[in-house]
Amino acid sequence: METSGKRFWEQITPNQATVSTLKRVLFSGKTQYQSVEIIETGSFGLTLVLDGKTQSAAIDEFVYHETLVQPAMVLHPRPEVVFIAGGGEGATAREVLSHHSVRRVVMVDIDSQVVELCKKYMPDFSRGAYDDPRLELRIEDALAYLHQTEESYDVVVIDIPDPLEGGPAYRLYTQEFYQLLKRRLKPQGIVVVQAGPTAITEVQCFSAVNKTLSTVFPKVFGYHTHMASFSATWGFAMATLGLDPTGLSIQEIDQRLAQRVKGSRRFYDGITHQGLFALPKHLRDSLARESRVISEGAPLFVV
Amino acid sequence: METSGKRFWEQITPNQATVSTLKRVLFSGKTQYQSVEIIETGSFGLTLVLDGKTQSAAIDEFVYHETLVQPAMVLHPRPEVVFIAGGGEGATAREVLSHHSVRRVVMVDIDSQVVELCKKYMPDFSRGAYDDPRLELRIEDALAYLHQTEESYDVVVIDIPDPLEGGPAYRLYTQEFYQLLKRRLKPQGIVVVQAGPTAITEVQCFSAVNKTLSTVFPKVFGYHTHMASFSATWGFAMATLGLDPTGLSIQEIDQRLAQRVKGSRRFYDGITHQGLFALPKHLRDSLARESRVISEGAPLFVV
Amino acid sequence: METSGKRFWEQITPNQATVSTLKRVLFSGKTQYQSVEIIETGSFGLTLVLDGKTQSAAIDEFVYHETLVQPAMVLHPRPEVVFIAGGGEGATAREVLSHHSVRRVVMVDIDSQVVELCKKYMPDFSRGAYDDPRLELRIEDALAYLHQTEESYDVVVIDIPDPLEGGPAYRLYTQEFYQLLKRRLKPQGIVVVQAGPTAITEVQCFSAVNKTLSTVFPKVFGYHTHMASFSATWGFAMATLGLDPTGLSIQEIDQRLAQRVKGSRRFYDGITHQGLFALPKHLRDSLARESRVISEGAPLFVV
Amino acid sequence: METSGKRFWEQITPNQATVSTLKRVLFSGKTQYQSVEIIETGSFGLTLVLDGKTQSAAIDEFVYHETLVQPAMVLHPRPEVVFIAGGGEGATAREVLSHHSVRRVVMVDIDSQVVELCKKYMPDFSRGAYDDPRLELRIEDALAYLHQTEESYDVVVIDIPDPLEGGPAYRLYTQEFYQLLKRRLKPQGIVVVQAGPTAITEVQCFSAVNKTLSTVFPKVFGYHTHMASFSATWGFAMATLGLDPTGLSIQEIDQRLAQRVKGSRRFYDGITHQGLFALPKHLRDSLARESRVISEGAPLFVV
Repeated sequence: METSGKRFWEQITPNQATVSTLKRVLFSGKTQYQSVEIIETGSFGLTLVLDGKTQSAAIDEFVYHETLVQPAMVLHPRPEVVFIAGGGEGATAREVLSHHSVRRVVMVDIDSQVVELCKKYMPDFSRGAYDDPRLELRIEDALAYLHQTEESYDVVVIDIPDPLEGGPAYRLYTQEFYQLLKRRLKPQGIVVVQAGPTAITEVQCFSAVNKTLSTVFPKVFGYHTHMASFSATWGFAMATLGLDPTGLSIQEIDQRLAQRVKGSRRFYDGITHQGLFALPKHLRDSLARESRVISEGAPLFVV
Repeated sequence: METSGKRFWEQITPNQATVSTLKRVLFSGKTQYQSVEIIETGSFGLTLVLDGKTQSAAIDEFVYHETLVQPAMVLHPRPEVVFIAGGGEGATAREVLSHHSVRRVVMVDIDSQVVELCKKYMPDFSRGAYDDPRLELRIEDALAYLHQTEESYDVVVIDIPDPLEGGPAYRLYTQEFYQLLKRRLKPQGIVVVQAGPTAITEVQCFSAVNKTLSTVFPKVFGYHTHMASFSATWGFAMATLGLDPTGLSIQEIDQRLAQRVKGSRRFYDGITHQGLFALPKHLRDSLARESRVISEGAPLFVV
Repeated sequence: METSGKRFWEQITPNQATVSTLKRVLFSGKTQYQSVEIIETGSFGLTLVLDGKTQSAAIDEFVYHETLVQPAMVLHPRPEVVFIAGGGEGATAREVLSHHSVRRVVMVDIDSQVVELCKKYMPDFSRGAYDDPRLELRIEDALAYLHQTEESYDVVVIDIPDPLEGGPAYRLYTQEFYQLLKRRLKPQGIVVVQAGPTAITEVQCFSAVNKTLSTVFPKVFGYHTHMASFSATWGFAMATLGLDPTGLSIQEIDQRLAQRVKGSRRFYDGITHQGLFALPKHLRDSLARESRVISEGAPLFVV
Repeated sequence: METSGKRFWEQITPNQATVSTLKRVLFSGKTQYQSVEIIETGSFGLTLVLDGKTQSAAIDEFVYHETLVQPAMVLHPRPEVVFIAGGGEGATAREVLSHHSVRRVVMVDIDSQVVELCKKYMPDFSRGAYDDPRLELRIEDALAYLHQTEESYDVVVIDIPDPLEGGPAYRLYTQEFYQLLKRRLKPQGIVVVQAGPTAITEVQCFSAVNKTLSTVFPKVFGYHTHMASFSATWGFAMATLGLDPTGLSIQEIDQRLAQRVKGSRRFYDGITHQGLFALPKHLRDSLARESRVISEGAPLFVV
């Protein structure tokens, strides 16, 4: 950093940016839906950037994808049919497919170019998931697909970018969409959503997503972890028809992982699970204070 | 950030920097020991910077200081006499003094100018702690003081900067120093140390401090939390003569806080405590692999 | 630059910024008209910044102010009464007052706070000019003043910020204003205007100002010099009722300086004068191609 | 610049950097001699960067290469045999070969990879020069070549990077090298050297090169122009056995260009020539004060 050279500049908030040394630019361009960059930085390694925002990076994609997928998969008694919205890197599918019980995964991503670029430049993220015969990859709008399908799912994973103004994602952050998801769940079904930063000054997306889910589902659990490559702690929301992830003991989780999952995880296990759901007091206070319900008529946009 | 103006640039690692809008410079100068800046940034508010590194900032100093102090204070059955090394902002003393049981706090900071500057420019950090008659503030070398005193303590809090090469702090990160601390503990005594970042690529200080403590104390517990103003998760190590912070239930912690502490904490409570000690698996693996013992002859320096 | 610390970030164009180490912030605030910062940078020393743009800096203010003032003053056979619009630093007045022939200078600046701040924090820029009894300082709108005064001038110096959208300066960059100036000139009068950057990609302000002046005055001469603290070459336009600065020999200029001016200049002399008016071919080509005439109805704004 | 994205950061001095938006990375790697990057920036277009320093950029390479080559070529009564040290972009050769009188050009560059990369990625810089049968390109050390050749030249152009510590260039900035060049000149021969920045605070390379040349050659003329892509004014030194570029009239230069040169130049003509050699007074004063003579035993390194 001390000398001349290439950098990647990511504006985290209007008042804060992260600057990384930029080693390589593997791809840079625009698809029909978004700008895409696949770069290698000195700090975070191989990184997918959509519309200027880091989506996942080699250094800690395992943290993100295990956090997104494993708690719901481990909580469900026997996840067999799973739906993924987004997830172009293929790492979400990889985590889902690590479970022996899974028979079928439907992954719907709107942007075929992102999927192809990830396959080409970031094969270590999907690690064979795209070749797994249990995976059905569909290139279309997840919202439209879920409206027309009659299939129902054990676990639904919403792994899409933040709701940027003008971007394609914002309709998947509404009460209407969550009502649709609920209709697509099997009796013990679970929905999990990436829900934006949980930084003290930026918690509004996370808390509004949690609040909105709570108007639709019997039980909602916010959780978070630190993502170095996002320069933030990152929030997730799990909505269930009754199951409770905070009721699982450390031992029970470790046992389920040993029995159900191929290989071991770098990040997730029973103790990690306990940490994920033990939100700090000020964040629980923010969730408790939230009254905003996101809807088609009152959408949420982040900057 | 989008326009011209003042910035604060903090190099987090050789490959990564955080850039914040800089609103005010309240003080900028050098003391006998270190460079000192007291600034206000758009992202983190009023901030103390020593030798180019953010020490604490208005936005999340409560996270840092509660994390450093409260777990040990709550774990101890009745903390009465407490020793603090460093802590010039006065916020560590503030947290210690929030406990009714405390009769006496000895705080030893080497740099009188930092203490005076914090009193003048950052009174909200100490919030009256410097006027509390239970506090004895001494301006001298904590190492020398602990060698000559015959007092012993219930809780010892080591709140000093990272061990920079050429800086004053590195001798307080050695096996020899920890042996001295052990001799100054009362029978149920606890030592807690700020122990550097726990980011995936920078965990060596945290793991070596934990390892070194474990060669001296019967029980050592690493824990961590996310510090936005440090652009990292930050590690702490608690060493005890037998007490175990992971054995406290959520209810027990909340009860002790209610009975023993004046006012309520923004960050810390029973659930938060559970999250602090539930380190993610990869970090526990790093701790388990660590073999380095820091000593006067083999000191640790961070960059 | 290699380490953490304060910086001043100046966006030069949407694609280019200059980043300097920031040593001190002497003043930072807003007046009725503009944001003002008086800072000291490691690269350019004491610097006045208005609305995020460097106006002058210790390292090369002598280049700017001598270039703005001396060619017109030396060209005029005997400048006695001079008008300055803007020039809050007092350095433009300093250069004008260096001429023994000057009997009276009227300086009109709209922003009394900028003038007072410059007097207080940047006395080396005015170097006594504000105490010179020949100077009449008026705090008001230069446009209004020139409308109501019946005085006429030998030399008029327009030393105001670039015409930013929403800023106060744009009306002083129009054909209407230049017509007014012409009416306020004595028979051998000269007008000189700071006219923005002459960088290859940013020459539109400079060329439009020259073009507009040429619709009003018999003779117009664009000239420029490099300003390190502006990260650009900077253009000026001289409009006369007949006098020609390119007709002066090196020797004649040096002789006039020796006879008429108190002390010697660091930047300006006969050879320097020759360089100022010898614009590179591509810049002369840009001037020749320009057709834009700036008017109240079609103002020019720079970004 | 206002948003996230790729940047190129160039440290101009320890206190100042230029940050540009980075559009493309065409090549990034290391040769045996130096690090090489061929990038496209938003501010300067296609750019060759060696060891972190911009060598030439599409936006103003014509300024640099015309300034380096044309004054010497136009001054010489009939340049037929020309030597170029460095100049891998091929643009220096392009300018030399624009003269009808030239029969033979020997260009010696130490780094074959830089030459090949420029041919491949920057063909607009050489514009056919590499295919001109009058050009002999040799990949070797220019110093060694000049020692062993017995040829003599009308014009010698030294177009090599600044003398960085550890880099290959510093031996070509010494009195010994200039004595060798003198022995290789024909009777009316001219040497021209790129000589580093002429910024107020960084003039030491320029003035020392001029001083050193003046210990070897009867006549030495420093001149400079502004290079936007270098964020500086840039100096050159012309050494002759008697010819004087300041004695040419504007008309004479324009006439020689019309008669001798294929096509017209964007930057250089008679007026431009006059501006190049009219150094500002403070720069002439710096040259006059310089006493340093660079030699093998007392080399010059820039940072």
